[in-house]
Amino acid sequence: MRILAFSASLRRGSLNGRLIALAVEAARRAGAEVDLADFHEFAMPSYDADVQALGMPPGADAFSKRIEAAQGLIISSPEYNYSMPGHLKNAIDWISRRRPNPLRGRSALLLSASNSPAGGIRGLWQLRIPLEGNGVFVFPDMFWLSSAESAFTPEGAFIDPKRATGLDALVASYLRAGAALAT
Amino acid sequence: MRILAFSASLRRGSLNGRLIALAVEAARRAGAEVDLADFHEFAMPSYDADVQALGMPPGADAFSKRIEAAQGLIISSPEYNYSMPGHLKNAIDWISRRRPNPLRGRSALLLSASNSPAGGIRGLWQLRIPLEGNGVFVFPDMFWLSSAESAFTPEGAFIDPKRATGLDALVASYLRAGAALAT
Amino acid sequence: MRILAFSASLRRGSLNGRLIALAVEAARRAGAEVDLADFHEFAMPSYDADVQALGMPPGADAFSKRIEAAQGLIISSPEYNYSMPGHLKNAIDWISRRRPNPLRGRSALLLSASNSPAGGIRGLWQLRIPLEGNGVFVFPDMFWLSSAESAFTPEGAFIDPKRATGLDALVASYLRAGAALAT
Amino acid sequence: MRILAFSASLRRGSLNGRLIALAVEAARRAGAEVDLADFHEFAMPSYDADVQALGMPPGADAFSKRIEAAQGLIISSPEYNYSMPGHLKNAIDWISRRRPNPLRGRSALLLSASNSPAGGIRGLWQLRIPLEGNGVFVFPDMFWLSSAESAFTPEGAFIDPKRATGLDALVASYLRAGAALAT
Repeated sequence: MRILAFSASLRRGSLNGRLIALAVEAARRAGAEVDLADFHEFAMPSYDADVQALGMPPGADAFSKRIEAAQGLIISSPEYNYSMPGHLKNAIDWISRRRPNPLRGRSALLLSASNSPAGGIRGLWQLRIPLEGNGVFVFPDMFWLSSAESAFTPEGAFIDPKRATGLDALVASYLRAGAALAT
Repeated sequence: MRILAFSASLRRGSLNGRLIALAVEAARRAGAEVDLADFHEFAMPSYDADVQALGMPPGADAFSKRIEAAQGLIISSPEYNYSMPGHLKNAIDWISRRRPNPLRGRSALLLSASNSPAGGIRGLWQLRIPLEGNGVFVFPDMFWLSSAESAFTPEGAFIDPKRATGLDALVASYLRAGAALAT
Repeated sequence: MRILAFSASLRRGSLNGRLIALAVEAARRAGAEVDLADFHEFAMPSYDADVQALGMPPGADAFSKRIEAAQGLIISSPEYNYSMPGHLKNAIDWISRRRPNPLRGRSALLLSASNSPAGGIRGLWQLRIPLEGNGVFVFPDMFWLSSAESAFTPEGAFIDPKRATGLDALVASYLRAGAALAT
Repeated sequence: MRILAFSASLRRGSLNGRLIALAVEAARRAGAEVDLADFHEFAMPSYDADVQALGMPPGADAFSKRIEAAQGLIISSPEYNYSMPGHLKNAIDWISRRRPNPLRGRSALLLSASNSPAGGIRGLWQLRIPLEGNGVFVFPDMFWLSSAESAFTPEGAFIDPKRATGLDALVASYLRAGAALAT
């Protein structure tokens, strides 16, 4: 299965960047072909129909094409203000105007890392909405890493082996479902 | 009561721009002092903690100051993908990092215009979340204008007088509650 | 594919009862084996851990077993107060305590009929949450029938043939995805 | 200010029952007149328009009258399946049919106790929706007690004095806002 993976945090060295790296390793071990994108590659202006009339911004075009080349998405997204990051929603707002809609029919697995005890899970519930509204099969189970600052070894692995096992199992379950849906 | 009002649509001539104009008139008739902003004044990059480390972007600063000068907000926001516009959420993400938080303790009234039969109301429910999470008293009742393209006269008034009466009553109720909370 | 279908409205002759009947016909035409339940069969008290300690109520047991005998669910649910009906949530609260959880790994298609212009869609978005939280693959697309009182012929068919075609296509898409996930 | 307070958990000795007891003490210390109800007093069947046609169930009547006698609500609600308890929603479904709507114009403060690290906060966000949709001013800040089983002394006080101070301050803030809105 071909996967596009990215962290929706723009900060260098972000917790979600570390988490997506582990998810990508898990997906590759499970046989997936993974394209790991840096969300900076998809820089785009705020959605504005007047700007759209002049053509899709290159960042939105790039995001659409990377999604179209994949069958599923693995996204690690921070929670901002009890919801998804505005810039991730803005990217969805742009690509949802493309025809055919690049999101429709694809599947997605959502992860979040956070230093809060709730681990970003509230933001993921809000992120499901625009994805599902655009026809994405969002895997029911999600992964949230609470107290994330102290969760990684210096090499970027999970300190707690149960977390590693849990992420591996979740990624493998998602890939099985995503592959079934992709056929 | 001092109100900051804006449409969260960036498109010139947008339906939400027309709706906020009517809400501003209603608020002024009810005795409020209204600052009607153009959201283009608050242009800002995507939230990124690395950028924040270099200082608040001028657009976020401007947005914060206009909010701080007011006691309440009237926002007319389009619904994008069953949720709020990404760029409005991004603006909230930036200003929520300012200390003291400019949103905390203020009140807000939410409106939406849309050509869909649901009139943008689903987006407003999602918009409540980051506002309330930042300590904003969001007025329980909201106003959604469905089939908005055919709702206005060429001069920008509502064709249906019941809508005018309804918006007037809602704005007046909100202002009473907002004034009570502001003291 | 084996489907359990039900309307979550308890009123005799309800709009959701009429809608689920059409969905059941569509599913049978598409080759599914459908068990159409009357939600009155699943009468159960309010969830209370003290009552649970005395044993699962027969209605919760019956609901669990009917779900376990199926691979997927088709639910037509009214919207009450911008969310799902309390008694449907109560039924989910009971069965989610059973081990193994009868919902986990199953799929679901959500429909709603309403006389309001929004057609119950807000309630379905809230209903996704406890289902997905229990591991149900909720099909991304949903069906909402607005102005439902005037949507049916006296024989219970859709007056508008486009609605019939739309429901047929949606049910068939769901069954394809559900069958893929069930294997 | 007159307050109706209750825990939405039906279990004897529940964590939310312990939390509401502390909130009631805080509200009384702040000068409120508090009616602490036991939710068992409001037992009622599942909402069904056919049953409603025969008259409001006594439990729904009792719930409405206790709300009408108050100016605000303090509710401590468990989270069930990432949302509010079904029986609490069912009670809202019933009373929302009464005219005038007993909820409209009142205010509410929401609390939750849970053994999970997220402390029930996801359920409270879902509970805001039917309350706000019925015209309740839900206080923006909410209180969630995580790891609640180990949070109380044998006498039912908070072990951690910061939690006591936090709850006191929140209740007092809510009462100030609620009193302003009630006039």
